[in-house]
Amino acid sequence: MAKIESVVTDHYRVPLPVKLTDSMHGDMDDFELITVRITDTDGVQGMGYTYTVNAGGAAVAVMIDRYLSDVLVGADPERIEALWEKMWWHLHYAGRGGHQTSAISAIDVALWDLKGRRSGMPLWKLFGGYDPKVPVYAGGIDLQFSTERLLEQADGFLEQGFRAIKMKVGRANVREDVERVQRMREHLGDEFPLMADANMRWSADQAIAAARELRAFDLVWLEEPTIPDDLPGHARILRDGGIPVAGGENLHTLHEFRAAIDARAISYPEPDVSNCGGMTVFRKIAGLAEAHNLPVTSHGVHDLTVHCLAAAPNRAHMEAHGFSLEPYIAEPMPVVDGFVTAPDAPGHGIDLDFAALEPHRA
Amino acid sequence: MAKIESVVTDHYRVPLPVKLTDSMHGDMDDFELITVRITDTDGVQGMGYTYTVNAGGAAVAVMIDRYLSDVLVGADPERIEALWEKMWWHLHYAGRGGHQTSAISAIDVALWDLKGRRSGMPLWKLFGGYDPKVPVYAGGIDLQFSTERLLEQADGFLEQGFRAIKMKVGRANVREDVERVQRMREHLGDEFPLMADANMRWSADQAIAAARELRAFDLVWLEEPTIPDDLPGHARILRDGGIPVAGGENLHTLHEFRAAIDARAISYPEPDVSNCGGMTVFRKIAGLAEAHNLPVTSHGVHDLTVHCLAAAPNRAHMEAHGFSLEPYIAEPMPVVDGFVTAPDAPGHGIDLDFAALEPHRA
Ligand SMILES: [Mg+2]
Ligand SMILES: [Mg+2]
Repeated sequence: MAKIESVVTDHYRVPLPVKLTDSMHGDMDDFELITVRITDTDGVQGMGYTYTVNAGGAAVAVMIDRYLSDVLVGADPERIEALWEKMWWHLHYAGRGGHQTSAISAIDVALWDLKGRRSGMPLWKLFGGYDPKVPVYAGGIDLQFSTERLLEQADGFLEQGFRAIKMKVGRANVREDVERVQRMREHLGDEFPLMADANMRWSADQAIAAARELRAFDLVWLEEPTIPDDLPGHARILRDGGIPVAGGENLHTLHEFRAAIDARAISYPEPDVSNCGGMTVFRKIAGLAEAHNLPVTSHGVHDLTVHCLAAAPNRAHMEAHGFSLEPYIAEPMPVVDGFVTAPDAPGHGIDLDFAALEPHRA
Repeated sequence: MAKIESVVTDHYRVPLPVKLTDSMHGDMDDFELITVRITDTDGVQGMGYTYTVNAGGAAVAVMIDRYLSDVLVGADPERIEALWEKMWWHLHYAGRGGHQTSAISAIDVALWDLKGRRSGMPLWKLFGGYDPKVPVYAGGIDLQFSTERLLEQADGFLEQGFRAIKMKVGRANVREDVERVQRMREHLGDEFPLMADANMRWSADQAIAAARELRAFDLVWLEEPTIPDDLPGHARILRDGGIPVAGGENLHTLHEFRAAIDARAISYPEPDVSNCGGMTVFRKIAGLAEAHNLPVTSHGVHDLTVHCLAAAPNRAHMEAHGFSLEPYIAEPMPVVDGFVTAPDAPGHGIDLDFAALEPHRA
């Protein structure tokens, strides 16, 4: 039996080509990337990563390095569920989510990658295999862009192959949001899948008022209209606002998704495979959504997520995140006429260019 | 206006005099202590601390050192609510609780201590002042103690001045738990306040069965009968088990307490001031409980908590935690006939002996 021989963690601060903005995270000039490489005694290696927005990455790296490595080294890499439980309980006190889940997520992805590489199977097939072609949307992080720049960005997304776009809302005055959505709708045409993301900016009542104004523009969903802690508020927004609601990038456990779905708080569960507990948990959330007759979408890290959604019959549009890792990925997945295709290489098939990342070490 | 001049964090691994055990955290030989000292430009200093069980402390220290210090230095130390919001949103992505809240808690306590010292007021008075004498119970961490040792420990608690005791349950066989509780009840007498803590060990149905067995022994409460994520399960245990339920040491936000109370999941909200967001949040939870006609109890760190409960008309018994910090506290509060009295020194009145802690630096 192969055993886990080493767990190597690295922490980078990766600059963004343009400053990005949303309603609650302020300006973003860079993002923190935390990578994990797990090698077994047969010399097979799996790679996972997670990221943070503005702050917190060093804590994730410390959790892996100082506490979770010890749980892993010497263990059977194939028993991912058992390792997951051990990692969860090892950091449970004061954890139970939060950055702990990002640390576990990066490790979980690396373990699944390792399993895929050991078996010679791409993960989307290992996960059951539904359809490797997954519809994808461009997630603009563009709250403070001028309307002109917003439309230019949309044209750029179309050129890149996208056929669905999400824009930010949550400006100081809802009037501005409504005008910007209207301009985007006119620019893209009536049939074009368009989403809007408020990044938790509003109170429930403000969100209901905004949703009612935005209803005219036929959004696929309104994302994170208020803080993720307020499930009753979400339920009111969904019911009284009259637009489907997406949420989940700030929910960090299977249980939080269960509670959100039970509360009828969200129409589109949107886990991030790099902060919800990894592929192990993402797939359970997808199944939970299916059991509730709901679609499942995603947040960020689409090069990893694609395998989970390519195995999920209830997958909705997958997010291609605005934090581009493409310059550091050996073979980025092309977007072709609104779809990306899960690679057929073993594991997740993603190789990071660690030499290119080296200058950005945090 | 004074400004925050420095934020100094230290991280220790403090050995315990005896190995402690509960149902889900395994053996505990030591605990991690993370201290924060905040000094303002007038030279006044406030001190706060938090701790972790078995693992995670280095992540808390990194969060403070690397990310939260920057939010604090140069700011007005008197605007705690404003600083709290800034710290919360700075680490919100991937955080929203977890170790982030422990880091904020330690800082929040230090800021309140600073405010108290600046004003010359003890915190319990600054918080409103209800009654400085707070009833206290001894929290035994004793799941694997023999019954003889359990009873001896109880005698020790009585000698120390305690007039209420909590014991662990959640052994392999519920029969054993029932026998141990019965022996304790017989030993302590019918009127003696006795609690039991299962540390999340059971499923909801196992907990209901155990609660029905334990009902004969008139427990004040049954604590954490199942995982804190399962609020519907808690509500069933509370309703069908027929014993009051305590919980909260693993809830890390005001919102989680709101959800637990709304779900009728807990009878005794039990925040830990060192992991729920500090005194700022503890006091809101106490008020939330009062608004729901519920008592409020506590977890751990009673030398800090005493100020919050001495200001809360709905306070129940406060926990004196089994992780003893006494050897490192200049003047520990004595337990007199079941009560401790909040000190009248400015701030929280606790001075840690940092020289004695030095050999335990992690
Ligand atoms: Mg979003
Ligand atoms: Mg407890």
